[in-house]
Amino acid sequence: MMHAPMASADHAPAPPVSFETSPARYRHLRLEIDGPIARLVIAIRENEGLRPGYALKLNSYDLGVDIELADAVQRLRFEHPEVTCVVITSGQEGMFSAGANIFMLGTSSHAFKVNFCKFTNETRLYIEDATENSGQTYIAALNGTASGGGYELPLACKEMYLVDDRRSAVSLPEVPFLGVLPGTGGLTRVVDKRKVRRDLADIFVTLAEGIKGKRAVEWNLVDGIFPTSRFAESVAARAKEIAGAGRPSRKGVVLDALDPVVTAKSITYRHVTVTFGPQLRVAHVELRLPQDMPEIPREASELGASWWPLRAFRELDDAILRLRVNHLDAGILLFSTRGRIADVLKLDEQLEKHAGDWFVNEVRHLMKRVLKRVDVTSKSLFTIVDEGSCFAGSLFELSLASDRTYMLSDGPKIALSVMNGGALPMGNGLTRLQSRFLAKPEHALEMASRRGELTAAEAEELGLVTASVDSVDWDDEVRLALEERASFSPDALTGMEASLRFAGPETIETKIFGRLSAWQNWIFQRPNAVGERGALSLYGKPESPEFDWNRT
Amino acid sequence: MMHAPMASADHAPAPPVSFETSPARYRHLRLEIDGPIARLVIAIRENEGLRPGYALKLNSYDLGVDIELADAVQRLRFEHPEVTCVVITSGQEGMFSAGANIFMLGTSSHAFKVNFCKFTNETRLYIEDATENSGQTYIAALNGTASGGGYELPLACKEMYLVDDRRSAVSLPEVPFLGVLPGTGGLTRVVDKRKVRRDLADIFVTLAEGIKGKRAVEWNLVDGIFPTSRFAESVAARAKEIAGAGRPSRKGVVLDALDPVVTAKSITYRHVTVTFGPQLRVAHVELRLPQDMPEIPREASELGASWWPLRAFRELDDAILRLRVNHLDAGILLFSTRGRIADVLKLDEQLEKHAGDWFVNEVRHLMKRVLKRVDVTSKSLFTIVDEGSCFAGSLFELSLASDRTYMLSDGPKIALSVMNGGALPMGNGLTRLQSRFLAKPEHALEMASRRGELTAAEAEELGLVTASVDSVDWDDEVRLALEERASFSPDALTGMEASLRFAGPETIETKIFGRLSAWQNWIFQRPNAVGERGALSLYGKPESPEFDWNRT
Repeated sequence: MMHAPMASADHAPAPPVSFETSPARYRHLRLEIDGPIARLVIAIRENEGLRPGYALKLNSYDLGVDIELADAVQRLRFEHPEVTCVVITSGQEGMFSAGANIFMLGTSSHAFKVNFCKFTNETRLYIEDATENSGQTYIAALNGTASGGGYELPLACKEMYLVDDRRSAVSLPEVPFLGVLPGTGGLTRVVDKRKVRRDLADIFVTLAEGIKGKRAVEWNLVDGIFPTSRFAESVAARAKEIAGAGRPSRKGVVLDALDPVVTAKSITYRHVTVTFGPQLRVAHVELRLPQDMPEIPREASELGASWWPLRAFRELDDAILRLRVNHLDAGILLFSTRGRIADVLKLDEQLEKHAGDWFVNEVRHLMKRVLKRVDVTSKSLFTIVDEGSCFAGSLFELSLASDRTYMLSDGPKIALSVMNGGALPMGNGLTRLQSRFLAKPEHALEMASRRGELTAAEAEELGLVTASVDSVDWDDEVRLALEERASFSPDALTGMEASLRFAGPETIETKIFGRLSAWQNWIFQRPNAVGERGALSLYGKPESPEFDWNRT
Repeated sequence: MMHAPMASADHAPAPPVSFETSPARYRHLRLEIDGPIARLVIAIRENEGLRPGYALKLNSYDLGVDIELADAVQRLRFEHPEVTCVVITSGQEGMFSAGANIFMLGTSSHAFKVNFCKFTNETRLYIEDATENSGQTYIAALNGTASGGGYELPLACKEMYLVDDRRSAVSLPEVPFLGVLPGTGGLTRVVDKRKVRRDLADIFVTLAEGIKGKRAVEWNLVDGIFPTSRFAESVAARAKEIAGAGRPSRKGVVLDALDPVVTAKSITYRHVTVTFGPQLRVAHVELRLPQDMPEIPREASELGASWWPLRAFRELDDAILRLRVNHLDAGILLFSTRGRIADVLKLDEQLEKHAGDWFVNEVRHLMKRVLKRVDVTSKSLFTIVDEGSCFAGSLFELSLASDRTYMLSDGPKIALSVMNGGALPMGNGLTRLQSRFLAKPEHALEMASRRGELTAAEAEELGLVTASVDSVDWDDEVRLALEERASFSPDALTGMEASLRFAGPETIETKIFGRLSAWQNWIFQRPNAVGERGALSLYGKPESPEFDWNRT
């Protein structure tokens, strides 16, 4: 359906993307820590884009930049727990950021654009999560124009301040310039988070040059403006006010590299292995619990980055990201676990008992974020509970996140723990048990406090697994289910799963991944944006786009 | 971007669709009234599709059938207020309905598919609205298999009963058969309305043959099953139970034909005129209030179908539908009014005072539905408040529904009335004032009780209009705003407006029009569905579809 150049972009074997980085390797960001205040300086190197073919001018970004941003946000929580205020600003005079690079978008495949937007959305949500749950308040110091994604990043901060220099503006010019939407939650955050009046929002998002000065404050597009001469000191004063004394007693935990072994057939981490096949389009994701896990000491952070829940969930996170971007054809993730249920339950107990400890709190929130990443992954998610598995408590959330769970009837058990009761909510604000039992909230509550191991028959009876299958039928039934799933249209599955996974209430987060992303994906397919004469394709070229004027 | 045959379908000058019909002209439905119980029998004539090229086999439907259904639901409320229970059943043995006709979908343009789905969704919501607000409870008697849209129709009923004959099933086979989604709210109603457990829903919507008998009851896919021998009597007994004595004292009001005069340049009704141009891609929609309006008598229904609010809002409804389907290139609707503010305010007072009267209640709910139809129309909505206008109370809701409102600063006034306070809610459950002032709920409340005429300066100050413009600049400013709007990508505008219009809470209704429809529209563009080798294109042909297996 796509024109030839696009079609080839869709199928060109792009080099695999790694999501691992560290401050020493950053090319585009500078992370400066000064007591309780961190400064994240965006200083993007034009010629060091992730892929060839575009220059990252005007502090515009690509996935490579966003991988650094995601890394910085994560490391600030674990490695710099003393920090209580993070100031995001620009290293370029007069330009905060021009947003996602248009030439990168214009030359990317549809799937890459969609995955890029999803990842940037997750990172923006993590900034909000850090502000809310780690006491690291993000403020944006817009020392120049913030345009498109360059404004969506400050929208994710708790506060933003704009320099009042008669030039610098905030803008979302995607509709007038590119014929697409602000793709990183912009429209939703403007009317739902900042609650800008809808007709003013309508003007704002159709005004290519954006809005500056007092009007930006009046419309609640920014929280304040300062003249150039007082900008740096005013922002610094506000940061100091927010930061307070910081938390100097906390000792950070350095996140070591995951460095998986990647082959054509597998991705192997310390506790997680992804194996492709043997079934067509299936990636088998196995999590393994070690034989021994230490108790949480008085100073929990002494456990370090090797502590199982931290390391294993970071590995799972990295695996999910690689599967999304580098393995488009692996349409089904098959989750399994290996270990002892008793060990998971003991771990969960400890995670709950020490929830007040900053490091344990961070690990719990990391687990929550990784599970949310699973929830919004556009792949079918199946869990198999077989012999030797340990789907209990926090690990059972993987099964609850799955579209289906098959459990071997003779042998394995599952169990629930305190961690199923609210520590790991979905994006819609419900626990996965509440989402599952929307028709029976009292049953969800009862399950959340249910203790003890459950057989397959019990689990099926309680509605906790989809099907209990005996060993005679097991191989065939699982194989047939996977084969059937692998035969369906991948697009229909994406829309279907997005609809079935998020019943019940909606939040800004689910609106971004559900409604806004779905509209953007539609627009990203339309000739008016990505056709040969579409606005996105022709951006920066002398020709004007040609639109099909029919409204749909 | 579309393959040649699709592209031509997209641009073929289809004959304009009329949305007017009446029971005497129904081809596919039989409406049988028996005291308090109405039976709506689906008996679709294969060879009388709205357009040539497909046969409506197995009680499958097209837009023509749905226009009859929408008409029947509307007329039952106005013409048969004595009815308290409506039984929808099939005139075909063993087949309730096979849903939307696949060959019709396969040969339709993208825009037509999208508009068809939107209209069918609205009709299903009106069935729920009649059940909730008119005391006309819909139950579905599935005397045969209900498949796809044929199951989505019963999903909109309060209760549904399936014949237990070992053959008849309910199913949503769109994903396995067609590579698209159940497009009429199916997925949302399964998990959000009927609250089917998400993994069971996943099995159900991937099981082409569907689910029958006891399992359909256990999964809450139907409310009960009866064997063939007892089916008719059991459903009749349930209908009788629901219907009770009915409301024999109510005398219905016959809805006369609107019969607009349609030319290439305009659509003219008694109180509404649509004029195309002079600006490019603009349709000017004017509502006129008559000089005199009668007081509401003790027996309000004596006012009949000519009563202004009923007639005018029916005309507006018809105009919106024609604009959506027959005038794709009219991307902007420009609303204006003519009349006296005092007359609107007096009308609104009466509408409120007599809200307890069944006929007045029906008119109020009709006004609500028409305004909701405006809210979800994929066109830019601008209101101009100029000399001679009467944007007050219920008519000011049109302005509140608009993306922008321009008001002439010297002369015209606006006013609010009791009708802005909750009688005409949006699909998200909020009033349009609450949606507008999401940041200031107390201001929304204050405005809802604000009385008296407001100048442009006051209206702008209170945030009720977008801009007050003086007469010197008026023509230029309005013209430029329209020209600018008309220059943007229609697709980007559709996604943008859908996002900005519905801030705040979400309901099943907004989920259907926002999230589910957006995903479906995306899928409706994808080669896996509509490409030459796509599943929708190849349905019923000997070839198997060929999918691009990459997940997006």
